[in-house]
Amino acid sequence: MTTTDTTAPAPAASPAAAAAPSASLRGVVPPLLTPLTEAGELDVPSLERLVAHHLDAGVDGLFVLGSSGEVAFFDDAMRARVLEAVTGIVGGQVPLLIGVIDTETSRVMAQMRAAERFAPAGFVATAPFYAITGPDEIDAHFRALGAAASAPLWAYDIPVCVHVKLAPGHLVQLGTDGVIAGVKDSSGDDVSFRRLVAMNRAAGSPLTILTGHETVVDGAYLAGADGSVPGLGNVDPAGYVRMHRAAMAGDWATVRAEQDRLAALFEIVFQPIGFTGPAMGVGAFKTALRELGIIATNTMSTPLRSLDDASVQRIRAVLESTGHLADASR
Amino acid sequence: MTTTDTTAPAPAASPAAAAAPSASLRGVVPPLLTPLTEAGELDVPSLERLVAHHLDAGVDGLFVLGSSGEVAFFDDAMRARVLEAVTGIVGGQVPLLIGVIDTETSRVMAQMRAAERFAPAGFVATAPFYAITGPDEIDAHFRALGAAASAPLWAYDIPVCVHVKLAPGHLVQLGTDGVIAGVKDSSGDDVSFRRLVAMNRAAGSPLTILTGHETVVDGAYLAGADGSVPGLGNVDPAGYVRMHRAAMAGDWATVRAEQDRLAALFEIVFQPIGFTGPAMGVGAFKTALRELGIIATNTMSTPLRSLDDASVQRIRAVLESTGHLADASR
Amino acid sequence: MTTTDTTAPAPAASPAAAAAPSASLRGVVPPLLTPLTEAGELDVPSLERLVAHHLDAGVDGLFVLGSSGEVAFFDDAMRARVLEAVTGIVGGQVPLLIGVIDTETSRVMAQMRAAERFAPAGFVATAPFYAITGPDEIDAHFRALGAAASAPLWAYDIPVCVHVKLAPGHLVQLGTDGVIAGVKDSSGDDVSFRRLVAMNRAAGSPLTILTGHETVVDGAYLAGADGSVPGLGNVDPAGYVRMHRAAMAGDWATVRAEQDRLAALFEIVFQPIGFTGPAMGVGAFKTALRELGIIATNTMSTPLRSLDDASVQRIRAVLESTGHLADASR
Amino acid sequence: MTTTDTTAPAPAASPAAAAAPSASLRGVVPPLLTPLTEAGELDVPSLERLVAHHLDAGVDGLFVLGSSGEVAFFDDAMRARVLEAVTGIVGGQVPLLIGVIDTETSRVMAQMRAAERFAPAGFVATAPFYAITGPDEIDAHFRALGAAASAPLWAYDIPVCVHVKLAPGHLVQLGTDGVIAGVKDSSGDDVSFRRLVAMNRAAGSPLTILTGHETVVDGAYLAGADGSVPGLGNVDPAGYVRMHRAAMAGDWATVRAEQDRLAALFEIVFQPIGFTGPAMGVGAFKTALRELGIIATNTMSTPLRSLDDASVQRIRAVLESTGHLADASR
Repeated sequence: MTTTDTTAPAPAASPAAAAAPSASLRGVVPPLLTPLTEAGELDVPSLERLVAHHLDAGVDGLFVLGSSGEVAFFDDAMRARVLEAVTGIVGGQVPLLIGVIDTETSRVMAQMRAAERFAPAGFVATAPFYAITGPDEIDAHFRALGAAASAPLWAYDIPVCVHVKLAPGHLVQLGTDGVIAGVKDSSGDDVSFRRLVAMNRAAGSPLTILTGHETVVDGAYLAGADGSVPGLGNVDPAGYVRMHRAAMAGDWATVRAEQDRLAALFEIVFQPIGFTGPAMGVGAFKTALRELGIIATNTMSTPLRSLDDASVQRIRAVLESTGHLADASR
Repeated sequence: MTTTDTTAPAPAASPAAAAAPSASLRGVVPPLLTPLTEAGELDVPSLERLVAHHLDAGVDGLFVLGSSGEVAFFDDAMRARVLEAVTGIVGGQVPLLIGVIDTETSRVMAQMRAAERFAPAGFVATAPFYAITGPDEIDAHFRALGAAASAPLWAYDIPVCVHVKLAPGHLVQLGTDGVIAGVKDSSGDDVSFRRLVAMNRAAGSPLTILTGHETVVDGAYLAGADGSVPGLGNVDPAGYVRMHRAAMAGDWATVRAEQDRLAALFEIVFQPIGFTGPAMGVGAFKTALRELGIIATNTMSTPLRSLDDASVQRIRAVLESTGHLADASR
Repeated sequence: MTTTDTTAPAPAASPAAAAAPSASLRGVVPPLLTPLTEAGELDVPSLERLVAHHLDAGVDGLFVLGSSGEVAFFDDAMRARVLEAVTGIVGGQVPLLIGVIDTETSRVMAQMRAAERFAPAGFVATAPFYAITGPDEIDAHFRALGAAASAPLWAYDIPVCVHVKLAPGHLVQLGTDGVIAGVKDSSGDDVSFRRLVAMNRAAGSPLTILTGHETVVDGAYLAGADGSVPGLGNVDPAGYVRMHRAAMAGDWATVRAEQDRLAALFEIVFQPIGFTGPAMGVGAFKTALRELGIIATNTMSTPLRSLDDASVQRIRAVLESTGHLADASR
Repeated sequence: MTTTDTTAPAPAASPAAAAAPSASLRGVVPPLLTPLTEAGELDVPSLERLVAHHLDAGVDGLFVLGSSGEVAFFDDAMRARVLEAVTGIVGGQVPLLIGVIDTETSRVMAQMRAAERFAPAGFVATAPFYAITGPDEIDAHFRALGAAASAPLWAYDIPVCVHVKLAPGHLVQLGTDGVIAGVKDSSGDDVSFRRLVAMNRAAGSPLTILTGHETVVDGAYLAGADGSVPGLGNVDPAGYVRMHRAAMAGDWATVRAEQDRLAALFEIVFQPIGFTGPAMGVGAFKTALRELGIIATNTMSTPLRSLDDASVQRIRAVLESTGHLADASR
């Protein structure tokens, strides 16, 4: 591969080969939160209610063990427990993407091997992290993973966690070469996102492209996204499903109205004061779900603290203003 | 002010006061490039053709001495020459925003004083740069500028240049307080952009909000943007004008089609190999305008190099593919 | 704890308690490279020669499974193989620090449990990474690890990998509280390093403080460092041992001369062209050790490439100029 | 030039040419603070006392209009007033370096022209800032400045302000080519600093190399620095002069003792709570000088606030502990 990203890839040599997996999962695929007991153990009854909340809303799939699922905080035993529980509860009603997040190639491969028995619709892997690498190493990483994967491989573009941005031309080349089947874009770089979609289209659409940015999914659909992986979709999956259907139908007024409503709900993540990162974002999602009666606690994994009362009250105020609390009490 | 950004501002005490200037300029306001002769002097005949290109397309205003106008490269004498020439050519046909880009408060004030005689519709200022400052200093900066400004003040959110992001709650508070009349958002942070628009609306719309991101203007319109300040608008202002009109009419299919077309054109900025920053982006715009016969050279300010022949050929290939070269030769 | 770092900690309540572990390991503790076969497996004969190279030089300890040991690239099985082999070869002749590098608290704890049976002199852990955390979470992380650790805990300050800097006041507080016994500083922030040493001294020296910056160890000794953890120490451990002894004796002319000589040798890491991160640094160390006849290959872990011939020749040229090749051939 | 930095420059073609200016200014060259009245105007009587404080201590020169001198906050008129006053007060007793800090080449040239009449011993210029540039543009920038400069040009390596690091091999090449005479290193990258010194020595020492890092000057001397430009030198210039003389004499025990004493004094910059950047650092220096009776106020330039009473009291506590207040009252 080249290390620059200045050329669009040539048309796919065999788009058909890559098209199959990309056709298999699109639409709304929320990154499933992991409900915990006060003691920090997996809370299976809460998980059951949360999965039902998603399935009732009509989501197209679930992404298990993503960043919002607190994957980085779980040791291998806990990851296995989560996968065991989720696959048991879902029972094949929707396809599952499984996050195989780890530092470098061999560790990601170990995560893939451990997850194989859960029959995922796809594995989701990031660029290498901890050690600095460049485009050549990222390419070798994904090609090694793709060769070893027993299910379609998805690239997870999340620079805020791994401190490197995946280049759109590189991703489309990996798609064209049959290495990856899709991209979860959490880059926050919408200029790059539009290029990715356009390059993918020019290459025969080897990739399914999903956005992770909860409040600009409408723009992503205008750009040509195939769906979304919204963390906020744990709180209001039905809204994202309605937005997706409207987008597919070209009903942009509805898309916009749903997005505006969901963006107002997203204000919950800005209510915690004195918290950082997932303690703030995932903490807000968990708090909202607890207040809505879906999960039992807002407990976060060590070393993250649960949101304090002041933050909870501020989140409740948002949920009041958006009507979610009223809906829940009906 | 507080240094956090967790609360939406209270409703404006006197929205009427701030509403007047915000009503005065919206729509498409391209950041005017500054054509140079081979020797690096201002090329007035090219400037005349470029302004005509904009006015013929129906732009709503022009932003002079922005980043795309190479303002950071111009000493005070050159800035005065540019303003003299542009105001003479435009002759009041459209309002002008004038960039008063400089490191810290007193220097920006000096730029404002120097530009006053050109009767701008607004001054555009960034956060302080070179020295690190925090939210309190940014607040004091804009309030001091606002108090001294003889025309409406616009905040220019451009972290890639000043290495700090303006917080949306802070901007809306400045709008509510009558300090600023508008925002040019070149932050690349569309989550923040949508929050800015929503907070502004909740506060009675004290601010006019324009996006500078050429390839996701469609999404910005869905979010509620009042218009755009697209550098690429120098090459194809008519496209951005059509997109704006379609957005105002709620004709999203046209918005999307124009945006896709303009995004394809934007690929010109990725063609230069071995160039960085404005040498690449502005260099590509200047090259395209030269190839289209509108300006005479693609010369950039010292220490930037003009694009080389290989880059020029690659840009021509994009212009061919998008039909712009064919249009120009008619 | 507070999230600012503006105050020096109060004098230690019980410095004696913390003093014991800090007394147990200081001086030169190189981060042991992990020799690999061409196939990427652990190369035990090379490891034996490399350990002998260190012991012959008189190092005070070894740091196994650090960043230079490619820890982030090794799955759990490989980590266990490395520890098994190293402890077998070293046979208790020097104490071993073991790196327990993983993303978040529970995963680091799992690494500690797996390494316990190798009787380490200490565990070395970084701040959490992958997910963004703040000072409170970092504090909770180290306190949880410290409570669970069966051997003294060391904090590894390596912002280039984990993207957060440990604050010196925080580290000394953790030392005073008996949570950590030492710090390996690879921060590259020598202003912070000197503050750390001074605050530690003011607190009764609860911490042993080692620097990882190969070419400014002399300045670290002037500042009061207790020793070094130099990656380059794999190539020339004897030089670092001589420098340490000279520093302890206050013979600064010798310290300086050794450091200048080692800094000249460190130029090997700047010779690879087109490589990034550990492929460049650790790759250069491995290449030098191969050229010196100590290990068999310069193979790196997937997805890192081994240095190419041009890089190898440039490294040989440095080794010639510093006399290391001539020494090796004697 | 090449954009990589992997090779030491060839021996200088004409070291003699470059040697002259580099010989002219070395040792302790504090960056002169700019005392302001409460109203924010230049406080000439305080400036007279501050300059006398420096000259009495035996400094080798003064750096006027550096970052610590608040240059980025001063418009052209204020810069001229400062230069007028300082040159009048100094009256040629020590050489002056003058900062010509501005965004890009033509603006820096304008600053040089304005400062020429003050007969500087050198001009100090940074890499371009505001617009992103790469190595080629930085090279063109310094070469254009060097060709235009009427006095020796110094490169100011200050990535915290300009967001780019100058490469040591590049700096030495510029020295060898007679473009620059010296470097003020405020990079905080001591690994790079040692490489710079070593490469410079190998090239025949075309450059004078001064460090700006107040608390690790001792290590810089070990590495071969020619002197220092310490902001803290405004508070205690005599300490830095003693350290320099000891370093030149190879008396490292004295170097170390002075550095430890000055590092304890440097704790003043960590006392302000709720301040950022120069409001914290320069604010602490100004506060200390006011408490020591040398300047009249601790006023900072707009938009920076002066330190509050709590911060002042904390700074006084440091000055008590280091004995500076007692010295001042004698």
